[in-house]
Amino acid sequence: MTPFKFEVLHKSKKSEARLGKIHTPHGIIDTPSFVAVGTNGTIKGLDSRTVTEIGLQLMFCNTYHLLLQPGTEVIKEAGGLHEFIHRDLPIITDSGGFQVFSLAYGSVADELKSRGCKKTGDLVLKIDEEGVLFRSYRDGSKVLLTPETSIAAQKDLGADIIIPFDELPPYHIKEEALKHSLARTHRWEKRSLDAHLKSPNGQAMYGVIHGGINLDYRKESCEVLTNLNFDGFAIGGSMGKNKKEMQEILSHTLPLLPKEKPNHLLGIGDLDSIDQGIILGIDTFDSSYPTRAARHGVALTKNGPLKLKKNANKTHFAPLEEGCTCPTCKRYSLAYLHHLFKAKELSALTMASIHNLHFMVEYMASIRKKISNDEI
Amino acid sequence: MTPFKFEVLHKSKKSEARLGKIHTPHGIIDTPSFVAVGTNGTIKGLDSRTVTEIGLQLMFCNTYHLLLQPGTEVIKEAGGLHEFIHRDLPIITDSGGFQVFSLAYGSVADELKSRGCKKTGDLVLKIDEEGVLFRSYRDGSKVLLTPETSIAAQKDLGADIIIPFDELPPYHIKEEALKHSLARTHRWEKRSLDAHLKSPNGQAMYGVIHGGINLDYRKESCEVLTNLNFDGFAIGGSMGKNKKEMQEILSHTLPLLPKEKPNHLLGIGDLDSIDQGIILGIDTFDSSYPTRAARHGVALTKNGPLKLKKNANKTHFAPLEEGCTCPTCKRYSLAYLHHLFKAKELSALTMASIHNLHFMVEYMASIRKKISNDEI
Repeated sequence: MTPFKFEVLHKSKKSEARLGKIHTPHGIIDTPSFVAVGTNGTIKGLDSRTVTEIGLQLMFCNTYHLLLQPGTEVIKEAGGLHEFIHRDLPIITDSGGFQVFSLAYGSVADELKSRGCKKTGDLVLKIDEEGVLFRSYRDGSKVLLTPETSIAAQKDLGADIIIPFDELPPYHIKEEALKHSLARTHRWEKRSLDAHLKSPNGQAMYGVIHGGINLDYRKESCEVLTNLNFDGFAIGGSMGKNKKEMQEILSHTLPLLPKEKPNHLLGIGDLDSIDQGIILGIDTFDSSYPTRAARHGVALTKNGPLKLKKNANKTHFAPLEEGCTCPTCKRYSLAYLHHLFKAKELSALTMASIHNLHFMVEYMASIRKKISNDEI
Repeated sequence: MTPFKFEVLHKSKKSEARLGKIHTPHGIIDTPSFVAVGTNGTIKGLDSRTVTEIGLQLMFCNTYHLLLQPGTEVIKEAGGLHEFIHRDLPIITDSGGFQVFSLAYGSVADELKSRGCKKTGDLVLKIDEEGVLFRSYRDGSKVLLTPETSIAAQKDLGADIIIPFDELPPYHIKEEALKHSLARTHRWEKRSLDAHLKSPNGQAMYGVIHGGINLDYRKESCEVLTNLNFDGFAIGGSMGKNKKEMQEILSHTLPLLPKEKPNHLLGIGDLDSIDQGIILGIDTFDSSYPTRAARHGVALTKNGPLKLKKNANKTHFAPLEEGCTCPTCKRYSLAYLHHLFKAKELSALTMASIHNLHFMVEYMASIRKKISNDEI
């Protein structure tokens, strides 16, 4: 089994962008890399074979969802997540913290759009130093998620990269409350790391930098967590309400992380954010944006997003993007995709998802090329 | 371009079952054969590549649906249906008659279940000798479907096998009305054939035997239509309200069809009906049953239907059918499929559909083997 290792192959002369290779027990991830989200152990509409064919090197699965369905003990019994979903390339899982705190506070998006908090808060029964007690939305059973149970679940899953249990405070939070949340997150991450190191099993763990939009707290988080024996670092918590705030937080945080370890930007992977993150030195990005956009009939192209359902596409008998080598564009015309969306056919969702993921893989390859040429 | 040709390779010594080969411009169909339904030019959840990989030799598309979306003129402009959907194996299209008369009278299933007729009857504006005038459910525009317009549409689509425009009378119909309907169907089929023969384009046309549950009318229909220059015959109209009635109609009708021409049983393809039809000499069957069952979580197996969502499957880590060589069973466990259905993932529908279609292909291959050995 290849141990986890990160190599920086090249640092751009023009920015903080860097070219690297993350070695994992299930293969290599060329960085910067886009990580697609397969919440329930499948990228929506695609099977593992197709995902591998597209060349997606790292897949993100959600511990919270897999814990409730089918249960991580089932996946352990199957021989782990790779075996269960029949994927032989690397997988990263999160801790479940993001989801249980979204249950408690509503998502950041909900908050920013003033949809109100605590929409699903009645599912969360208790939050204390131990962890979070909540009810399964599936069967109403009580589930206790703590640093130790999250890591136990992630051991059952056996992903190549795992994430410590953390608290996701709401965007609108008082300074004092954020300070307490940060301190608790650090204690939880330490407990997670300790639990992990009892049986590393070849898995790597990324510490999650928190601190919300408070730059001092971000600095403190880097100081505390880089003193622990994490294999890499993820940047989590609120990244502000717009790209400018994110830019500030990232350009402040990244220099405080060790250069020899890989880093990951959690849950952000639209093209603008990727462009912005790359030159600050981000190595990997996960996002469900490309596949969600696909299911809504939006194809990503070099000329920007393309609305597949637009009437103008009805008789466009060329591929949706000229020269695209994805399994969809190699075989099907934009007119056919347009038709399948209009006819509300399932295969439309799959075909568009394939294209968009392939687009992301190619996009990152082109970025890596530019970095190696010091163009960005 | 290979011209349409039918060869009978072997006739069972035990029954009327027969082994054959239908040659078409897009390749061979080994008979008896199961024909999957891809109403809108896609088998739900699958793309053409997968369908070909499964070995499905003939695909059934619906002219009514393609006429309204995207429009057969669009498909003509694409270079025909094969080109549009990127399929290089044979396709059969129907006339649209079944659907427009279902609009007028409600489906036979609706009738038998006493759901009442004319549910969507307000879409049909006029039925007369010329044809049927109805409103598109998509944009409300008026569409006139006649023998000539149906054939023109089917010329646009360019399927290997096409079907004349016919009337589908309701199951509960008075003798006199059925007689008139039958006579009109015969006139419409003749007009369809005439329209077709003006530019055959390598397409074959199957006449559709009608007469409902009246055996004298079935006989009359065979007499009238076998005197016309059809390349084969489909058996349509009401086949009765149960398998016994269907058995009576088929065993009465099939001996009246020319042995040297292929025949097709329209819209019926459950396993019992296939077994029943084969020994009476049916060559091809189309049905959406296997793919619809798959989307409802039912897998077809040698041991009967398997409910994928059943809790007992949660930790069944072997394929859903031992020894199955389909792309789903080769890679994924029953437990994974169970999980994907429980998590309401799109890929579940695709994976189960692949298995069920592969099952049908294998089922028909085993039937052909039995016929060649005179076992059935």
